[in-house]
Amino acid sequence: VFTDTRVDGLYGNDFVEGLEKQGHRVHRIVMSEGEESKTLANYTRLVEEVLAFGIDERSILISLGGGAVCNVCGLIASTLYRGIGLIHVPTTLMAQCDAAISHKQGVNGARGKNMVGTYYSPSAICVDVEVLSTLESRLIPDGLAEVIKHALGQDSAYLDYLLRYDGDIRDPDFLEAVVRKNIELKCKLMAGDPHEHREAMVLQYGHTIGHPIEYLSQYSMSHGQAVAVGM
Amino acid sequence: VFTDTRVDGLYGNDFVEGLEKQGHRVHRIVMSEGEESKTLANYTRLVEEVLAFGIDERSILISLGGGAVCNVCGLIASTLYRGIGLIHVPTTLMAQCDAAISHKQGVNGARGKNMVGTYYSPSAICVDVEVLSTLESRLIPDGLAEVIKHALGQDSAYLDYLLRYDGDIRDPDFLEAVVRKNIELKCKLMAGDPHEHREAMVLQYGHTIGHPIEYLSQYSMSHGQAVAVGM
Repeated sequence: VFTDTRVDGLYGNDFVEGLEKQGHRVHRIVMSEGEESKTLANYTRLVEEVLAFGIDERSILISLGGGAVCNVCGLIASTLYRGIGLIHVPTTLMAQCDAAISHKQGVNGARGKNMVGTYYSPSAICVDVEVLSTLESRLIPDGLAEVIKHALGQDSAYLDYLLRYDGDIRDPDFLEAVVRKNIELKCKLMAGDPHEHREAMVLQYGHTIGHPIEYLSQYSMSHGQAVAVGM
Repeated sequence: VFTDTRVDGLYGNDFVEGLEKQGHRVHRIVMSEGEESKTLANYTRLVEEVLAFGIDERSILISLGGGAVCNVCGLIASTLYRGIGLIHVPTTLMAQCDAAISHKQGVNGARGKNMVGTYYSPSAICVDVEVLSTLESRLIPDGLAEVIKHALGQDSAYLDYLLRYDGDIRDPDFLEAVVRKNIELKCKLMAGDPHEHREAMVLQYGHTIGHPIEYLSQYSMSHGQAVAVGM
């Protein structure tokens, strides 16, 4: 189980104990939080750490966290023994709507975002919107940037709904509806273009400019903020 | 162009100048020789070196060398921008018969061989048996170990031919026939099983035991020697 310091404090013990009760042998790897830990150096260090546990081709890596945990864990799973099992359990709105619902795995190079990565499919993605109740407030608008991007690119009725919504953006029913709709939209698009080279390139909207902004801010701007400016 | 110190001394300048004459902008990266350079640490260092040249999604990596150069270069190509162009130009008998004719890319972990890697297809593999004339003598039997493996697993008439052959194993006509036959046998097998999980598992013959032997010898035994013992 890959997680970060913050998520580990909130859900780590319950998650690991739950798996152990089902008879699984579990190792926990805790990364530091955020985009700064999504580096090639960290990838290398974590690969050796995972191998030291004595895993084999049938082992499964589970990411429990936001986009950065998801992406690093995904790259590791895709390269250990040329690909072992991968399950994403995204815990941020952004990861539930976007980062985890993807074949793209990767880390940042010294010269830009997501320079090193692979295409690799998780065996399962488990989304529980209840965990969003413990999400830091600033990360709700962060995730909504990607939500608005999907609505803009794919569904004008959904965009109207979002523009007219004047309730609480932390309302669990609102969040569940948004996550559900977003996954549906993204999966529909990716089914026909898994590598995002044709029609799914609309998912890059806001990112062409957003990525360099995020990189040049040295990740002091969040992914969602940078994408919002990019749009 | 990825190569190693030995091959660079023999063919590096001609190769690079040939490409430059055709109008290509070429960077050369020279690794140290052999299996010891096929490490995760070296992979990371070379990735940053390649990125520093200012390459983009349309750049192409060319491996010019033996199995180790081939494998490291392949892993780098498969992970830069989630996959850029890859061309293998194998220069040893082993690489021409086996390592380059593969979707498997990878490096060695601290705890074993080829622990970290990907499946990735080269766009082209250019085999010129003439370069075998400068191959160190010990590397001919090294490559023949893989040749015998293919014959044993796939073609008893070919095995008979090899067993009866009493000419010079450096004879260019013999080497050309062997390389040609081996590529044909390997491609036929991999067409139906590119990840080598079913019928192409016969290619692992000698490797199950050979890999640990090679690893435990700290790579003082060559790949071919270890596979021969493994068989």
